[in-house]
Amino acid sequence: MSDSPRQLSLNAFIHPAGHHEAAWRHPWTTPERLFDVTYFQEIARTAEAAKFDGIFFADGPALRSDVEHGPAGTLEPITLLTAIAVATERIGLIATASTTYYEPYNLARLFASLDHISNGRAGWNIVTTGTDLAAANFGLAKHPDHGDRYSRAREFVDAVVRLWDSWEDDAISLDRENGIYADRNKIHEINYVGRHLRVRGPFNAPRTPQGYPVLVQAGASNDGRAFAGQYAEAIFTAHQRLSDAQAFYTDIKSRAAQFGRNPDHVKILPGISPFIGDTEEQAKALEREFNELTSPEYGLAQLGALTGTDVRNLELDAPVPVELFAAAGDVTDNKQSRLQVIAGIVERERPTVRGLLHRLAGARGHRVFAGTAEQVADTIEEWFTSGAADGFNVMPPYYPGGLEIFTERVVPILQDRGLFRTEYTGTTLRDHFGLPRPESQFSGSASAVQ
Amino acid sequence: MSDSPRQLSLNAFIHPAGHHEAAWRHPWTTPERLFDVTYFQEIARTAEAAKFDGIFFADGPALRSDVEHGPAGTLEPITLLTAIAVATERIGLIATASTTYYEPYNLARLFASLDHISNGRAGWNIVTTGTDLAAANFGLAKHPDHGDRYSRAREFVDAVVRLWDSWEDDAISLDRENGIYADRNKIHEINYVGRHLRVRGPFNAPRTPQGYPVLVQAGASNDGRAFAGQYAEAIFTAHQRLSDAQAFYTDIKSRAAQFGRNPDHVKILPGISPFIGDTEEQAKALEREFNELTSPEYGLAQLGALTGTDVRNLELDAPVPVELFAAAGDVTDNKQSRLQVIAGIVERERPTVRGLLHRLAGARGHRVFAGTAEQVADTIEEWFTSGAADGFNVMPPYYPGGLEIFTERVVPILQDRGLFRTEYTGTTLRDHFGLPRPESQFSGSASAVQ
Repeated sequence: MSDSPRQLSLNAFIHPAGHHEAAWRHPWTTPERLFDVTYFQEIARTAEAAKFDGIFFADGPALRSDVEHGPAGTLEPITLLTAIAVATERIGLIATASTTYYEPYNLARLFASLDHISNGRAGWNIVTTGTDLAAANFGLAKHPDHGDRYSRAREFVDAVVRLWDSWEDDAISLDRENGIYADRNKIHEINYVGRHLRVRGPFNAPRTPQGYPVLVQAGASNDGRAFAGQYAEAIFTAHQRLSDAQAFYTDIKSRAAQFGRNPDHVKILPGISPFIGDTEEQAKALEREFNELTSPEYGLAQLGALTGTDVRNLELDAPVPVELFAAAGDVTDNKQSRLQVIAGIVERERPTVRGLLHRLAGARGHRVFAGTAEQVADTIEEWFTSGAADGFNVMPPYYPGGLEIFTERVVPILQDRGLFRTEYTGTTLRDHFGLPRPESQFSGSASAVQ
Repeated sequence: MSDSPRQLSLNAFIHPAGHHEAAWRHPWTTPERLFDVTYFQEIARTAEAAKFDGIFFADGPALRSDVEHGPAGTLEPITLLTAIAVATERIGLIATASTTYYEPYNLARLFASLDHISNGRAGWNIVTTGTDLAAANFGLAKHPDHGDRYSRAREFVDAVVRLWDSWEDDAISLDRENGIYADRNKIHEINYVGRHLRVRGPFNAPRTPQGYPVLVQAGASNDGRAFAGQYAEAIFTAHQRLSDAQAFYTDIKSRAAQFGRNPDHVKILPGISPFIGDTEEQAKALEREFNELTSPEYGLAQLGALTGTDVRNLELDAPVPVELFAAAGDVTDNKQSRLQVIAGIVERERPTVRGLLHRLAGARGHRVFAGTAEQVADTIEEWFTSGAADGFNVMPPYYPGGLEIFTERVVPILQDRGLFRTEYTGTTLRDHFGLPRPESQFSGSASAVQ
């Protein structure tokens, strides 16, 4: 393995009818299938046939306030990934779940079970939940502030990993002759006591095939980066420009090193939402076709929510007022970091209001790229070989066709260039990402009394 | 449907290597497969081939304190049932989950998702959790008392059902032409405010194929019966004797009627754990063979925990001291109701200590029956036709063989007698149980302003 050239990771970010806001209105999509598990199983099989590392679902425990202008409501991602696990064999299965709105024991069980059922393919995208709509669904008067959420998130991950570690790998003895099922000296209480959480344990399931699921993270705020440097094994991130992605990459790798971690064991995967055509013109025409299906009223409402300003009276064909993003300087939370990305677009490109709405409709601030398969492969290679990315979170603008064209046209180019696997070399998500299987922190602790 | 004779319901209660405490030590079982999803998928397919109504998993969010004397730890049941959903087509899928240790919004999502993924086969066995080991896994100094748990359970079910009802059945309009995905007047906040819980909603998924999952319950205490009469659509129960089962059946049906419910829409399913042989003698010999694999020390520890007395010094071949069950008169909680069942056995049968331990090893206080297939069918028919049961929760002493012999030998007899279906007549668990699909309580509420 160490002799082979460094390999890209590719992950398919699954989003209802596609990442483009208006994808559900395009005739190539099938929004009537969004609660049909076979729709998602087919997408996962497409990604698996192309040897992708994993698939990924975002999540939040609340309904967005606008249900009119696009798919609202989703299947719960851990059950959905379980249904996909049974219909696939190799591809990694990453679900988002909130440390703010779950109990660690319950969430640890769901992910451990997914890892057992999938034979080691589970990943957990750790979020603190960005929307304050969730609070009222959990009896809270208000969403906890960013610092409190991250402080709980640290405790949550510490407790959950200890639960996953609480059975040593060889705890089950299965001695039928003498009637001893498990060795009680290899199953440990964790006795976790934090400021937010107390969890005694032990866990009620054995250690999983991967030791524990891959820890994924997506926060780009200062707290988010600090958290990622300490805990994350893979990071989903949003960058418009190579230089920004390089700066982020360097920052996270050095933070990981400061925590005594091997920087190679933190995979950085920026989002890319590709419109692919036979020619660049065709690709850009396709992007325009999708943009023309968007609702300006909806886009203005989203922009208003993001900037905290009433923008409903902006002239669509006038330039975006730069002062709209005056507050975007300080990256205190994830919304701010997204706002900063958008402020950068406005500053550099001076788009019209309509132009900006179209940019945002593409993938909510992630990088949209319209070009030929060759051009898409070129930009992936450039970012991969110039210290900006270890791979990509592929965000097809429309499903399932937008993933299919990527796997049929872009993946073979990447394979021909020796950048991407032609066969899986391992069976677990850790194998695909090149991450080690962690040893249990309790391993041998019973015999540590010398 | 109404012209056909009343039909039995049969449900397979899946328990690691079987319900007998020592099943995992018997050569017919495969305890090395307990974290292999295909083991459970195969059992489910066996039950489905025999046209069972459903399968069922018990659950609790804690590891039992004794991990030595039998299978400890489990896959999480909702993910496990999701994996089974994808490997089956018709059979109902019932999981236990705790109202004391879950958040309503999270649990509502998991079950709704299972109902969508299985096309309407989900059931929720509502428990308040009997073990105080769970409390320390959720940051509580002590397990809430029985009354508090039931008071929260009522609020929990009320809130969860409202979440499931919060999208009217036709809320998704999917109007691509005009860009309207859903009708916001058909998606409702629930604004639930109780003493224990506050949940605003709306839910973040559409109404499920069954309207909502079947509500199942298993508490036999006074609080449990009151709860069952008001909410339960199916009840799992434990009775040793026909007369006790008849009294319970009459009590629950009349409680349901008092709540204005149709008593036929509450299915009562006692447990039965059958050892089946070619002759009665052979069946009883098989039961003895399993009993001889039990550990008396383990049995005494369990009995001690149940009675709250140190019984480790009891003579195994002496009669059980009757005073051990002096406290069993008052049915204040579920443990007490189980204790009362056991006190009844002791009073009627005057067993030795070893004899009682063997009785309890069979199915933890549920009815163990050893006989021929004909005798098993006879007792099922007797209970079914004499006002004691609407069907049975079948608890094979060993898996998978103990279910296979039941489906191969007992089911055909029940079918020949016209008591049990030979084909499924519907597709959902509600169809199998003969339960109506509930209308959303918000249905038409937006237009109720006339």
